[in-house]
Amino acid sequence: MKKNYKFIVSNDVPGPTKEEIRCLVMCKSEVSSSDVILEIGTGTGGLTTEFARKAKKVFSVDKNPKAISLAQANLKRMKLEHKVELIQGDALTVLDDIPQFDVLMIGGSSGDLSQIIKKGYKHLKTGGRIIITAILLETRFEAVNTLRELSMNPDIVDISISKGKIIERGTMMYAENPVAIIYSSKK
Amino acid sequence: MKKNYKFIVSNDVPGPTKEEIRCLVMCKSEVSSSDVILEIGTGTGGLTTEFARKAKKVFSVDKNPKAISLAQANLKRMKLEHKVELIQGDALTVLDDIPQFDVLMIGGSSGDLSQIIKKGYKHLKTGGRIIITAILLETRFEAVNTLRELSMNPDIVDISISKGKIIERGTMMYAENPVAIIYSSKK
Amino acid sequence: MKKNYKFIVSNDVPGPTKEEIRCLVMCKSEVSSSDVILEIGTGTGGLTTEFARKAKKVFSVDKNPKAISLAQANLKRMKLEHKVELIQGDALTVLDDIPQFDVLMIGGSSGDLSQIIKKGYKHLKTGGRIIITAILLETRFEAVNTLRELSMNPDIVDISISKGKIIERGTMMYAENPVAIIYSSKK
Amino acid sequence: MKKNYKFIVSNDVPGPTKEEIRCLVMCKSEVSSSDVILEIGTGTGGLTTEFARKAKKVFSVDKNPKAISLAQANLKRMKLEHKVELIQGDALTVLDDIPQFDVLMIGGSSGDLSQIIKKGYKHLKTGGRIIITAILLETRFEAVNTLRELSMNPDIVDISISKGKIIERGTMMYAENPVAIIYSSKK
Repeated sequence: MKKNYKFIVSNDVPGPTKEEIRCLVMCKSEVSSSDVILEIGTGTGGLTTEFARKAKKVFSVDKNPKAISLAQANLKRMKLEHKVELIQGDALTVLDDIPQFDVLMIGGSSGDLSQIIKKGYKHLKTGGRIIITAILLETRFEAVNTLRELSMNPDIVDISISKGKIIERGTMMYAENPVAIIYSSKK
Repeated sequence: MKKNYKFIVSNDVPGPTKEEIRCLVMCKSEVSSSDVILEIGTGTGGLTTEFARKAKKVFSVDKNPKAISLAQANLKRMKLEHKVELIQGDALTVLDDIPQFDVLMIGGSSGDLSQIIKKGYKHLKTGGRIIITAILLETRFEAVNTLRELSMNPDIVDISISKGKIIERGTMMYAENPVAIIYSSKK
Repeated sequence: MKKNYKFIVSNDVPGPTKEEIRCLVMCKSEVSSSDVILEIGTGTGGLTTEFARKAKKVFSVDKNPKAISLAQANLKRMKLEHKVELIQGDALTVLDDIPQFDVLMIGGSSGDLSQIIKKGYKHLKTGGRIIITAILLETRFEAVNTLRELSMNPDIVDISISKGKIIERGTMMYAENPVAIIYSSKK
Repeated sequence: MKKNYKFIVSNDVPGPTKEEIRCLVMCKSEVSSSDVILEIGTGTGGLTTEFARKAKKVFSVDKNPKAISLAQANLKRMKLEHKVELIQGDALTVLDDIPQFDVLMIGGSSGDLSQIIKKGYKHLKTGGRIIITAILLETRFEAVNTLRELSMNPDIVDISISKGKIIERGTMMYAENPVAIIYSSKK
């Protein structure tokens, strides 16, 4: 993971997911080069590019057309656009059209998290993984709860990171907002 | 500790120390109503007001004249100015003039941390406490190290706090920068 | 808050709440000497003793008779038993018998959190505070959610603390499990 | 990174480094398949196996012969022993025999951190990376300080992770001890 990734960003689109969280998501999702990924919540395309680098194919959905164009620009800049199909639309609708995948990555859910997980679970291959990133308290709870309802025995890891910035007087530690990763695999 | 304390703030003066850290500093310093406090690094006066509320007398030193006037305004607003002597000057010089105290609170040290601790230790009453708050990596290290040199057997507590803010979609968790409290008492 | 509090502990009873969390709960609950406190979940009596020290009267409820005897022993040791009425029983039943209080402190709820908050809210004086401590993800969510239903505009603070322990090679940082404090006042 | 890695462990040998920290170290070190790695502090071999999976060659040094045999067993189990040369000995001595490498990974330094960094820096290829993991306060400080002396402009990331464990009443969050990763590249 090159530190010097530079994403084009926009005030109208959330992201990109911070480098450390992208790194941990990639580890937790255990992506291989034969995997098909469905990502809900493209945003700036931070995680999209990571998945594109490792997987066979990535489908990435966002309601917001600005997110789609921004992610498109970022994928082009990194020469990864051939690996990704960006879809502007509603996750629950799009799920009808994508028959099967190895990883369901949910970074944004517009309030439909529980339904997306349940519908996505049906299309997820056996051995496939569901990964949810959460910055809201409610997302943490709903993700764990829905995966438990599906008997998926979820793991949750809550990550707090501080980064040192060298200022005149020394190394000031700046906190980043905590992010939780909730994940599980289908038996 | 009233949540609705409102401090006057300034871009030229650091602080006030966040409510939770003020609260923990007060617990760790075990101030009683007969205690004399010497505070190095007045800043906005956040901790100064807490000490003023509980102690017999507070001496508070800052190099920055703007800090002194700002803290003065905050103490007046909270009707605590009679408990506090604000001193604009250098900590090491001021230490010569203050013979004895029960608590040495160091919130800012302008690079003289080790010397301030060592000189302060001499004037600290037996049973008295030294408390240092640290936002820099180097301050954490130097505080622990100097107290160990004095055989003071220091404790260090590093505190990371996230606060929920209710936004449209749910409760977003925002991190505050980590602060360490290093403390010890003189046997 | 004396660092050298020594609580009698038991493997059958949770607690005591860690010193730093007790300290923050006391700050957040803004207890005065005229306040009546209702505590749900006495446990070892860690928070009970803090409230007893500052408030006029503390009622403290626990389902577990072992918690009641342990807390009784701890209160005696600290000469605070005259301030506290310990009640072995069910929180929802006990709430019928305690007409009014200034602070409702919920440290344990045996699965009835939402109902305890709602019933407790009715008996809480105007200006009174509800404080919930949470170590479970679900408690954090349910506390925020129930207080929002009551239009209480809750605050949530999630606290992660590491403590240094001086070992041969240096200062090893040990993490304590995160605790959230959810709190609000009744307008 | 397969979650189901199972390392053989021993009470006499520290490690393995936790999965999330291994994952972040791999991202920060930006290892490619042509890279030669020098690891100081083999321990259980947790990071050694990760580097072995991605790099061309790993040299890994530990003073403790028990660490060497334990890491050897773990590498065999994962069929990675052909990628790694394990060396029982002193880091500063070993550094004389290894002319050049792309990554210097320091997980344990037996008190010689500053000298290891300085000597290692000389043998590090231009564009190479130095990575230090720290659980001690002093290691964090010394790593940042020594890299700054070398004008290496270090980054420091301090990572606190809590993991949920599903118990009867809900999802209990357990903290892991904080680990810092200090890293820099040679221009």
